[in-house]
Amino acid sequence: MHILIIGAAGMVGRKLTQALVKAGTVGGKPIERLTLADIVAAEAPAFAGAVETLAVDVSDAAVAAQLVGKRPDLIFHLAAIVSGEAEADFEKGYRINLDGTRYLLEAIRLEGARAPYNPRLVFTSSIAVFGAPFPDAIGDEFFSTPLTSYGTQKAIGELLLNDYSRRGFLDGVGIRLPTIVVRPGKPNLAASGFFSNILREPLVGIEAVLPVSRDVRHWFASPRAAVGFLLHAASMDTSKLGWRRTVSAPGLSATVGEEIEALRRIAGDKAVKLIREEPNETIIRIVDGWARNFDTRRALSLGFVAEASMDGIIRAHIEDELGGKIGG
Amino acid sequence: MHILIIGAAGMVGRKLTQALVKAGTVGGKPIERLTLADIVAAEAPAFAGAVETLAVDVSDAAVAAQLVGKRPDLIFHLAAIVSGEAEADFEKGYRINLDGTRYLLEAIRLEGARAPYNPRLVFTSSIAVFGAPFPDAIGDEFFSTPLTSYGTQKAIGELLLNDYSRRGFLDGVGIRLPTIVVRPGKPNLAASGFFSNILREPLVGIEAVLPVSRDVRHWFASPRAAVGFLLHAASMDTSKLGWRRTVSAPGLSATVGEEIEALRRIAGDKAVKLIREEPNETIIRIVDGWARNFDTRRALSLGFVAEASMDGIIRAHIEDELGGKIGG
Repeated sequence: MHILIIGAAGMVGRKLTQALVKAGTVGGKPIERLTLADIVAAEAPAFAGAVETLAVDVSDAAVAAQLVGKRPDLIFHLAAIVSGEAEADFEKGYRINLDGTRYLLEAIRLEGARAPYNPRLVFTSSIAVFGAPFPDAIGDEFFSTPLTSYGTQKAIGELLLNDYSRRGFLDGVGIRLPTIVVRPGKPNLAASGFFSNILREPLVGIEAVLPVSRDVRHWFASPRAAVGFLLHAASMDTSKLGWRRTVSAPGLSATVGEEIEALRRIAGDKAVKLIREEPNETIIRIVDGWARNFDTRRALSLGFVAEASMDGIIRAHIEDELGGKIGG
Repeated sequence: MHILIIGAAGMVGRKLTQALVKAGTVGGKPIERLTLADIVAAEAPAFAGAVETLAVDVSDAAVAAQLVGKRPDLIFHLAAIVSGEAEADFEKGYRINLDGTRYLLEAIRLEGARAPYNPRLVFTSSIAVFGAPFPDAIGDEFFSTPLTSYGTQKAIGELLLNDYSRRGFLDGVGIRLPTIVVRPGKPNLAASGFFSNILREPLVGIEAVLPVSRDVRHWFASPRAAVGFLLHAASMDTSKLGWRRTVSAPGLSATVGEEIEALRRIAGDKAVKLIREEPNETIIRIVDGWARNFDTRRALSLGFVAEASMDGIIRAHIEDELGGKIGG
């Protein structure tokens, strides 16, 4: 089996690559070849099969034809300009997130016109396809009301994925990822960064800033769960999806206060004391428009699995990123 | 006021042009100039102001720039490849219905980058953005589940209209038109054609074929109501829409049997006897996936108005198309 990962150098792409190499198979089929594409070359993993890393720009139509010309059996399309950047640079967001996705779908369709070809395509969408006001728990039949260009581009990607699947050009599965917590690495300027910062930093004895109140509620899954969603999407029976190819992944609805209490249970008061409350009106306003909770009966019935508690999310981080140890 | 109609030669475009010329104003502002664009030149109406008719291909990016370069205050974007053709010719459907719409939005954005510009853009979407299974009455918060490429392209148009409005590039209103009944002209091969044929033909003494059973339910508005939606969208207060710029227009949910009984009340048994039942499995299957009823509280509260009965729809046809007379 030949697997192509577009967006392989990002956090989720790296973890997905590691998980694929570790498993060695997808849906019982051995992985023989990995093609890792991103705007910068991904690090090549230690892998017995063939590995190719490519630094490419997905907004160049020729790139999609080049990648798809090798007829991968399974394609993960994770590449995207993130929300803040797509909002700041309108043209770049549409070029990468919309045109880039459409070039990929078109390259698959045209490849199939040459000789039968129907790869599984796993596409990461986002809960940003929803925008306030919404119901307390957003179901899979709630309409897409993005309040960002990024969310618009992802919602369009979902529609294209449906249509190209329905027309028989590819076999698509879209997954709306929750906000990933605990995101490894350094604090960044993303408006959602604090949800991870207030756990990750205190776990290693470093202070973190909390810019919103403790009763802010949001929707979370661990990096480990996110990779699990992608792997499940890669081999699931897509006939169960009908032509509604995108699923809101399961996750955990929790408040900042619940994050902090889980941190306290796992790392004690000492860790919690490292959280400094420093309200930031801009972040408060942005976060106010975000989804808080989802009804994911459909995803659960399709076999997607996420953590059931914030404690579980923190423990996954400690195991996967800190070698099982906490402190500072 | 300068008004641009893209798709001016189609049935709705022609009736809209007539209505604008007759009114002479939109939202109290006098119409000084009409630009009528379509793939074939529209007929120029008798109009005191300036009229220009253009035969253009909207899938040519330069055309949008040419049309928008004249800075119309109000733009109606009605042009589209219809459902059957977009399904039969995948590339053409995306080229006209998606690329054509995007070129228009981009041309407006780029015109605004040169000098402030924020035209009202009225976009005709379709109930084809919905696909079975759906609730008995589809509300404005139900998600887009198109089962045709045409519906996909219209749903994407709605998302783009929202985002370009939110970003301040234009002031968009999308309207999901019901199936238009009674469609004037000759019977055509569209799967939905019989809904009109079984009224229009018997009203002038001609036989018509009914390919489905009388209990088939669907969603209707007259051409007169459709023009009314467009005129209302042209001058309504869009602040009431928020960033949910598309509205399912009001209409009438009725069965074929109810159409026939209305025909009987207005034109008698003689007319009804001209309807020949000839079941067509293909049409039965297609129509089975169509929406039957909508919850249009939102549209009604925004001031959109449609006929309340099939009798009203038939009477509008008799007045507008038959000079008030029936017979044969």
